[in-house]
Amino acid sequence: MTKPDAGKHPAPGGTPVMEGLSCPVPVSDYPNILLAHGGGGRLMHQLLEGVFLPAFGNPMLEARHDGAVVEVGGARLAFTTDAHVVSPLFFPGGDIGTLAVCGTVNDLAMCGAKPLYLSAACILEEGLPVADLRRIVSSMRSAADAAGVRLVTGDTKVVGRGKGDGLFIATAGIGLIEHKLVIAPSSVRPGDAVILSGDVGRHGMAIMAVREGLSFESSIESDTAPLNGVVDALLAAGISVHALRDLTRGGLATCLVEIAEARGVRIDFDESSVPVREDVEGACEMLGFDPLYVANEGRLIAFVPAEQADKAVAAMRTLPVAEDARVIGRVGDEGRPCVVLRSKIGASRLVDMLSGEQLPRIC
Amino acid sequence: MTKPDAGKHPAPGGTPVMEGLSCPVPVSDYPNILLAHGGGGRLMHQLLEGVFLPAFGNPMLEARHDGAVVEVGGARLAFTTDAHVVSPLFFPGGDIGTLAVCGTVNDLAMCGAKPLYLSAACILEEGLPVADLRRIVSSMRSAADAAGVRLVTGDTKVVGRGKGDGLFIATAGIGLIEHKLVIAPSSVRPGDAVILSGDVGRHGMAIMAVREGLSFESSIESDTAPLNGVVDALLAAGISVHALRDLTRGGLATCLVEIAEARGVRIDFDESSVPVREDVEGACEMLGFDPLYVANEGRLIAFVPAEQADKAVAAMRTLPVAEDARVIGRVGDEGRPCVVLRSKIGASRLVDMLSGEQLPRIC
Repeated sequence: MTKPDAGKHPAPGGTPVMEGLSCPVPVSDYPNILLAHGGGGRLMHQLLEGVFLPAFGNPMLEARHDGAVVEVGGARLAFTTDAHVVSPLFFPGGDIGTLAVCGTVNDLAMCGAKPLYLSAACILEEGLPVADLRRIVSSMRSAADAAGVRLVTGDTKVVGRGKGDGLFIATAGIGLIEHKLVIAPSSVRPGDAVILSGDVGRHGMAIMAVREGLSFESSIESDTAPLNGVVDALLAAGISVHALRDLTRGGLATCLVEIAEARGVRIDFDESSVPVREDVEGACEMLGFDPLYVANEGRLIAFVPAEQADKAVAAMRTLPVAEDARVIGRVGDEGRPCVVLRSKIGASRLVDMLSGEQLPRIC
Repeated sequence: MTKPDAGKHPAPGGTPVMEGLSCPVPVSDYPNILLAHGGGGRLMHQLLEGVFLPAFGNPMLEARHDGAVVEVGGARLAFTTDAHVVSPLFFPGGDIGTLAVCGTVNDLAMCGAKPLYLSAACILEEGLPVADLRRIVSSMRSAADAAGVRLVTGDTKVVGRGKGDGLFIATAGIGLIEHKLVIAPSSVRPGDAVILSGDVGRHGMAIMAVREGLSFESSIESDTAPLNGVVDALLAAGISVHALRDLTRGGLATCLVEIAEARGVRIDFDESSVPVREDVEGACEMLGFDPLYVANEGRLIAFVPAEQADKAVAAMRTLPVAEDARVIGRVGDEGRPCVVLRSKIGASRLVDMLSGEQLPRIC
């Protein structure tokens, strides 16, 4: 059996680079899959490192990117997939259909690709109302139109009652990379500015509010949105984008740790510069969540050369979806990867991924 | 609401071309999804025509091909997806991992493309043994190696107990079309020879034997296999292939009806020329199935110009997976689409899709 850390690159001296942030219990010690293995945190990364990477190990998969970048027939393409299992199927600001399209569009955009074509494989549970399916399919079409992509191929399977949960949608997508940049975690450089595109925590809290039957003074809507326009704006402004990542499962904190680990760098950021809406903050406090770890579906972080940061922020702010874009931190030295948060009261602390599951089935 | 037959093309005179083979109950008359909507038969086609095509209607989707053929960056690509929900996860001759890889490889090959890259989106049910997952992932790797493709991107989600069924895998794939042929149902011509690559019914009966706890004198193994080598052999032999289809859900009969409907032609075939293994025939008789409708995962039909039929059969027979290839029928006149079977006793009868589900969750 392959050791669970086979996917890691040893640092000089033989110590795994990620040791400082590793969870002490490897996936092989769990005989069965836990809900937490799907949570976007440390356990999910161990499942990837312990089961999938050893079997399929190849440079594209090991890049730990939001998608694979491949050469096909002379063209540089991005290719990505996501399974969507959000519960409930409908939530304020969207539904599983919106999410399925935006999730894949955004993963392509995070590779610096222009999203072009999507596929959708649907797993329906017997008893799903056809009217719900029509509504979701209509949302998919609207989201695809908004993002300028076409759904060109699909598949439908049905499972018996109690063997699914209404509807799961797995989307995949193809995008075309039309520039010479290598937009990937590996391109992050010490000194890079870290730009956040807007407020965090809305998607996760919108889902939780429905699930828990909570009502707040203002209804919290998911931020689900296509982000390819933001990437277009950065590229059109001539920004030498180093890396991009959308802040889904695990939220801002997990994404920063993923990039720090993939590139082997320190990242510093300021809590006070991360916008969180008051109602989201309130909901997080009530439910005991940290908004830095709550999922978003229409937010990204961009790593750009420090001298281009202001220009990049200005370019992003031309889009309504990124009108609150701002610099939140910078990339520090290479070496042991870590993410350091300077809190609102001025103290510094290390930020890690959560071990397991904060919010199951958020996307 | 869009009418359920919006995806059909009216014939001169306003009568839908497919009227002769249509099921009288449109999908809109079912308020909820039935298992039969996933069975590959008439109900599944109505779901496609009534819900998905009206929303996404575009030439790629309407081609009713196994995948979409798209131009990206100057290259002609095939793009396809499949959700895999087979139960049980392991069966004689393969498992859900083998099936997930071969299914997508074969759909790309049926577009005449060289399969290159795959994605896999996995939906795990809490409690799935990690050892089972490792075994399945290993099967995926072996199948990918056998087909010469690479799995380059993936996603993993976990749902709670009773909200899934062990493991579902949705794969998508990209292939490159390196020739000038248009291999698609629309290219089928009156007079074309219909070639079948081997015996039918094994995959479905292998699954059923496990499910029903049946034991036959010889164990029936699934025929799950990659078919891209067969397509390569046809192209290398210079065959002007018109159309290809792998015989999955709904089996040989359903595939013939799909092609007849997509192209608006009559297809004649001989029952006596369709090989069925004795044990498969016996299992079908015992369980009340018609082997012509039973799923395969390593069989295809090829439509080629009649004058190239012998050469095509010889090329296919160079591959072990198609060593029983033979001509089983021919394409007749254009007009009202129909499929006519000449039975072993010399009688002729019309063949239609099944209305619903013969074998649920076969792939």
